[in-house]
Parts: sequence; structure tokens; C-alpha cells
Amino acid sequence: MRQIKVGVIGFGTVGMGTVKALWNQKEEIEKELGVGVKVVKIVDKEWMIGRPMVVPPDIKSSDPSEVIDDPEIEIVVEAMGGIDPAFDYVSQALARGKTVITPNKELIAKKGRELFQLSAENETDVYFEGAVGGGIPIIHTLKEQLLGDDILEVIGIVNGTTNYILSEMSLRKTSFEKALEDAKRKGFAEPIPTNDVEGYDSTYKIAILATLCFHGRVDVEKVYREGITRILTDDIEYARELGYTIKLLAIARRIGEDIELRVQPVLLPLSHPLSTVFGVENAIYVRSRTRDLTFRGPGAGGDATGSAMVGDIIDAIRNIKYEARGRVGCTCMRDLTVLPMESLISQNCVRVLALDVPGVLGKIASEFGNSGVSLSAVKQPVSTPGKLTNIYFLTHRIQERNIQKAIQSIQNLDVVKDVYAIRVEDGES
Amino acid sequence: MRQIKVGVIGFGTVGMGTVKALWNQKEEIEKELGVGVKVVKIVDKEWMIGRPMVVPPDIKSSDPSEVIDDPEIEIVVEAMGGIDPAFDYVSQALARGKTVITPNKELIAKKGRELFQLSAENETDVYFEGAVGGGIPIIHTLKEQLLGDDILEVIGIVNGTTNYILSEMSLRKTSFEKALEDAKRKGFAEPIPTNDVEGYDSTYKIAILATLCFHGRVDVEKVYREGITRILTDDIEYARELGYTIKLLAIARRIGEDIELRVQPVLLPLSHPLSTVFGVENAIYVRSRTRDLTFRGPGAGGDATGSAMVGDIIDAIRNIKYEARGRVGCTCMRDLTVLPMESLISQNCVRVLALDVPGVLGKIASEFGNSGVSLSAVKQPVSTPGKLTNIYFLTHRIQERNIQKAIQSIQNLDVVKDVYAIRVEDGES
Repeated sequence: MRQIKVGVIGFGTVGMGTVKALWNQKEEIEKELGVGVKVVKIVDKEWMIGRPMVVPPDIKSSDPSEVIDDPEIEIVVEAMGGIDPAFDYVSQALARGKTVITPNKELIAKKGRELFQLSAENETDVYFEGAVGGGIPIIHTLKEQLLGDDILEVIGIVNGTTNYILSEMSLRKTSFEKALEDAKRKGFAEPIPTNDVEGYDSTYKIAILATLCFHGRVDVEKVYREGITRILTDDIEYARELGYTIKLLAIARRIGEDIELRVQPVLLPLSHPLSTVFGVENAIYVRSRTRDLTFRGPGAGGDATGSAMVGDIIDAIRNIKYEARGRVGCTCMRDLTVLPMESLISQNCVRVLALDVPGVLGKIASEFGNSGVSLSAVKQPVSTPGKLTNIYFLTHRIQERNIQKAIQSIQNLDVVKDVYAIRVEDGES
Repeated sequence: MRQIKVGVIGFGTVGMGTVKALWNQKEEIEKELGVGVKVVKIVDKEWMIGRPMVVPPDIKSSDPSEVIDDPEIEIVVEAMGGIDPAFDYVSQALARGKTVITPNKELIAKKGRELFQLSAENETDVYFEGAVGGGIPIIHTLKEQLLGDDILEVIGIVNGTTNYILSEMSLRKTSFEKALEDAKRKGFAEPIPTNDVEGYDSTYKIAILATLCFHGRVDVEKVYREGITRILTDDIEYARELGYTIKLLAIARRIGEDIELRVQPVLLPLSHPLSTVFGVENAIYVRSRTRDLTFRGPGAGGDATGSAMVGDIIDAIRNIKYEARGRVGCTCMRDLTVLPMESLISQNCVRVLALDVPGVLGKIASEFGNSGVSLSAVKQPVSTPGKLTNIYFLTHRIQERNIQKAIQSIQNLDVVKDVYAIRVEDGES
């Protein structure tokens, strides 16, 4: 039986998950494929500090060149994360004709163009099933089964940390700060959580999804981004009264030949398939001309992501066995224009922190009117006269630039302390 | 550019949906694949009665041999349904080295072994993405991305007709009969709905899913089957009080090295991802050692299923282009033993139609006890003394054979008119 040798660079959670899944299922996979698969080298800088997985000493290394320069290794698993030095290692591996498997969303989002170019030139493959939605098999599905679909939008809950926080805020009515602390305690949030709570992580993922769905490479810098740090439990309560939940969504939608592209907390109708996705779970919703699909599953975790990477390894082996490398290459073939945020049209839920004084509602409502924004509902909770209170305004569908104008002028009112707008996601733009 | 010729046999809803999707996306697909794809012949017996789709006269035919015997046709789409004559046509096409694409669940469930054998002998491919879950890309996912997963269970809502009926009964509290009539009016149910409401359709689909998940061919005759005709709106109400909904599920679960395999209405916890799937929508839930995944989408319809078939065509073209036919063949490699229903262990919700006379509850409860079944809850609604009333009993987890014994002896009580048991699905067995 032919033996295919695998080298692994980076042995953190996902690297370990991949090797574990491969070892657990080795016999089964070899029987199915009629090909042997063997991890011959694992490179990591942290062997000294100990890893919770036993690895034969002879396959441990701390030198990436032992994988990259080994001509017998046909498949390289990159599980370091980040751009530097992962980009170098992956580029070198591809240049040597090796197949690369990586769950590195930042690498794919920022350096995808170069990597797929290299991969095509060297007639090899790059796989990245683990890069979006962890254990959810969405990448292969988009590149293969849905390649011929006329996709209109893709919407994801692609960050478990923020979905956990918003779920806790919604189900237990805890504040953002408390939910974040809880997430840190449970290992669902990093000590410095900026990358997740400010939405950066989701921008990489939606850039990748949009690139696949709309067949044109999307620059991650073009993704409009807002985090969830300003969301209050009161916002979630008010949303629920209106029939919505609040989720941090990553949205890419075709508007004519262009696309709208954004990561932001939105009011999502309770009837939407993504509204019932709670906790750290992820989900991706794809709407094409002919079908609405929802893919739901674990968005992170070494075991789940490791299994997704093993799916990639199986695909890689099949291509090697059938001499069909390059069979599914880059699917980008057009230039996409990302629309500026100002042209977005949506309903908005605007929260205004204002002094509860006579006439305050009228003053604020007038500013909406002056900016061309008409209102569909107002909610002023019972409060103490003379004190600050949150008043909620639900607008009709209107261009983002009008909302921004309204926010500006309301912000300038002397009775107003703060203004915050959350868009309503209704599947239209 | 190389041209790949496609022949279509059967031009009903799905045949038309496939051709429509292919024509709509032809340019895009050809650009992506670098290969031309052309429908050169469509065979149907019903051209006379008119089809709601315009087809050039020169590609119309009523003779299947014009597809099967044409050496230039490399891909055959079979969209007739049923075994006879579809099995003959597909066999002949495979024997001539053609790739076959079929959404024919009955054909794959009953004749899969022969077809994959033929396909392997002739180094070609059989695709059947449309056979389960219509437009949901579950087949490729199981055969490829999840091939290396250690799958523990697969549960599907794989019949839109019955899910629509149960959803209507649940949301609108209409009777089974009324919901069925409504489904017929809307075109969601056949005039003779037996195949759907009695669960036969779902047995084909779970046989296919189990075969893929557990890597051994499952005989469709071995699937235990119950339909939904006996479900009452009262059952659904009582289920809801307990925190459940009622769904017709197709379940395949590994118990040690064997599998449990059944289609039946069950009480499903409202927290389960499948509990929020309403109407004609389908969904498939897969639980492996490392991940829980849910795939949700349209289970039928020409356009959605047609798109799934186009996904198959794309895969077929890639294999032809890369000379990689057979790349993903049959994934069966072990013998599976299907456990007898009697050995199933589950909670049961038992509805007993009995005369409301003093002591009736005690009599029935005693029979449960005599059969070794202990009870967790009883609900006797207010009724008219001396009249028939439905009493609900919720049992603890117990072997099916004990439940059957209890039902028998309760049925024999002179105060009892009818007994009906619904299993509780709790993810265990």
C-alpha cells in the first residue's frame, strides 16, 4: 500500500486535534482510501513547556525545515496561525509541490491570492476547511457542490466568543462585561478579547466566504466592522419585544453586480434559521436563486476543527492518488466591487441616552425627520424625570447616510448624552 | 475548450430543474471549469402532454437509447424515478462507461450495491446528491468531508410532506386529515399520500444515510417504519407541555458495532436543532465523536434539487477533466447488523383511549407495572364520566419489548378502546 507522509507545523489546540483525529481514524481512512497515511514529523517551538498529548520522540522537531525540505512529505499541515512566519512556511511548502492544509483564516483572507497562485503554478492544492466555522464543512461545499449556484447572500455566525456572550446576555440577562468575564473563565474568550469582540475574527471569515460565494477575491480591509461591546441587555429586551434577537453577523450580499460586506451586531428576526444558534455554536446561512441552506455546528475546538482538517487530508490524498492535484483550484474569476456602507439601506433600531425632560422625545424625533428618517416605533421606558434614560427609536428602511446624519444631529442635542444604532437584518438591501 | 455532452432521461420536475439550473449557470460553470457542458438530448415519454419549459426540438427524444447508446454522451442524468426501467437504463449507461447522476432514492437504496459495483468495474461515477434532502448538500459531505469521522448517529427530517403536516398540526392545531388535505391542495402531498405519510419515502433516505455514515450497505427492508397517520393534535399539545415537539424522524444510530435504524414519529426535545425545522423544509443532524452538525434546506422542488444535481455534474466534469473517475467510489467496507426493534431502549409516551370510570387509571397503571414498565408522569384530562377519554402515560427508559407487552395487556382491558405509543428521542439508546 502506498504511504503518504504528513508533516505538521504548529502543535497547539488545532494541530493536536488534527493529529489525534488522524490517529484515531487511521485504520478506517486507510481502508477506505487504499492508501497509507503517516504523520512523520511534528514541528513546534513549545515542546519544552509540555503538550497534553503523547508523541513519539523521533517525530518531534522544532525545525520547520525538517518538514518543508523533506522531499518525502507530500502533505503539510500548518496549524500555527497568524501571517508571520506561517506565510513563509506555507509558500515554501507549495513551491516544493506539497499540498498544504491550514485552518488559518487570517492567512487565507490576507494572502489567499498569493497562495492559490503558487498552488496553481506548482500543480498542488491548498485546503482550508477549518478556517471558517471550525468543524462545519462549509468551504468544500461552497467550492464544489454550490459552485454552480447563483448565490445571493451568505450570512454567518462565525465567532463563537461573541455568540456566547450575546446568548448569555439574552438568556440570562447578564451585562456584556459579566458575560465576557464568564466567557474568559470558561476558555471561550482570550484574556485580551479584542480580536473577537470587536469583530476582527469575523471579518477574515466573511472575506473568505464572500470570495467563495461570489467568485471574486475580497479584500479583508474592505469589510465594514463593528463589535458588540456597546450592546446592552436592554437592547436585547427591546429587540425581543419587536420579534428579534441580537446577533453579531458577518454578512455578504450581492447587490446587482456589487457586494455589501459587513460584520456588525444586528436585529435578526426570531424566524430566521440563525436566530436559534446559541452559545459558542457557529452557523452559516447561504441563500441562492434556488435554495436556502443553513449549516450549523462547532465553530472552534481542537477535536472538531481537527476532524475538518482530516477531511481535507482525505481529499488531498484522493487527489494525490488519482494524480488530480489542482482539481478544485481557486474559484475567483471576477472583480468584485464592495459597496460603501453609506449606500446600505436598512431599518435601524436607535438607542438614545437622553435626559428625561419635557419635550425631549419631540426634539429627538424632529432631528430624525430633519435627516429624512421616518420612524416606525418609539419606546420611552418609565424613568425618573430629570435623569438619563434610554429611549428606543425604530426607523423605517432608509439609507445609512441618512441614519448617520440623524445620529450626528441627535448627538449634538444638549439633552442627549449618547446615540447608538443597530441595523435590522431583514434579508433585503 | 473541451465539450462535455449530457443526456437527460426523464423530464419531470427534477429533470426540468436540472436542465434549467444548468442552462442558467452554463456560462459561469464553463468559465470556472474551463470545460464546456452541453445538454444534447432529453428523453421523455410525455412530450405530447406538454412541459412548462421550452426545449429545442432537435434535442427532444422519446427513446432512451438515444442517450444510452450515444458514445459522445459522457454524463447521463436519470430523473425518471422508480426502479423499473430506471435501473436498466442506469446499468446500461454505467456499463458503457458513462457517469450517471440520479436523485432516485429508491434506486440508490434498493440497487446501490449493483450500481456501485458496475460503476467500479467500468471506472466511472454514480452521483446522487439529490436523493436525500433534495437541495441539501449532504451526500458529498458524508462521502468526502466526513468520511474520516467516527459517526455515532444521523437523524433526518427527510420528508417534507409529513413535516408540513406535523408543523400545521402543531402551529395551527388542525387535525391530521385537514393538514393532509391542505398539503394536497398546495401540492406538498400526492393524491395517494401513502409513500410519504406511512414513512416509506423516509426509509429509502435513512438507508442511504446510514450506508454512508456507517460504511456498510444497509438493506432498506431492515428499516423499522411507522407513519404519522395516528398522531393527534392532543399528542402534540401534551408533548409541548413536557418540552417536546413531535416530528417524523429517520434515525440511524450506532450501538456498539451494530446499528439501530428506524423511521417513526417521536417526541423530540424543543432544544434539539431539528425541533425548529418547520413546513416542507428538511434537515439532517449528524453527530460524530468530535462534532454535532445540522444541515438544513429544501427537501424537494425542481429548482433546489436541480441545483444539487448541477453540483453533481460539476463534480463529474472535474473527474472527467482530471481523468479521476472513481476518485470517490463506494464507501461501504463492512457488514452492518441492524438491531431488532425489541432491543431498543427509550422513554415512551403512551396514549390510552379508555372509559372514564372509577379505577381506570389504576387498572392501566398496574398493567404497566406488570410488564416491568415504570411511569414518570400521567395526565388524565377532565372528561365526562362514563365516556371515552385519552389518558397519557410517560414511561421511564425501558426496552421496547416491555412496552409492547404493556400495550398488549392494556389493550386487553375491557375499559380500554385503543393504545398508541410514541417514543421519546433523547439521543440515547
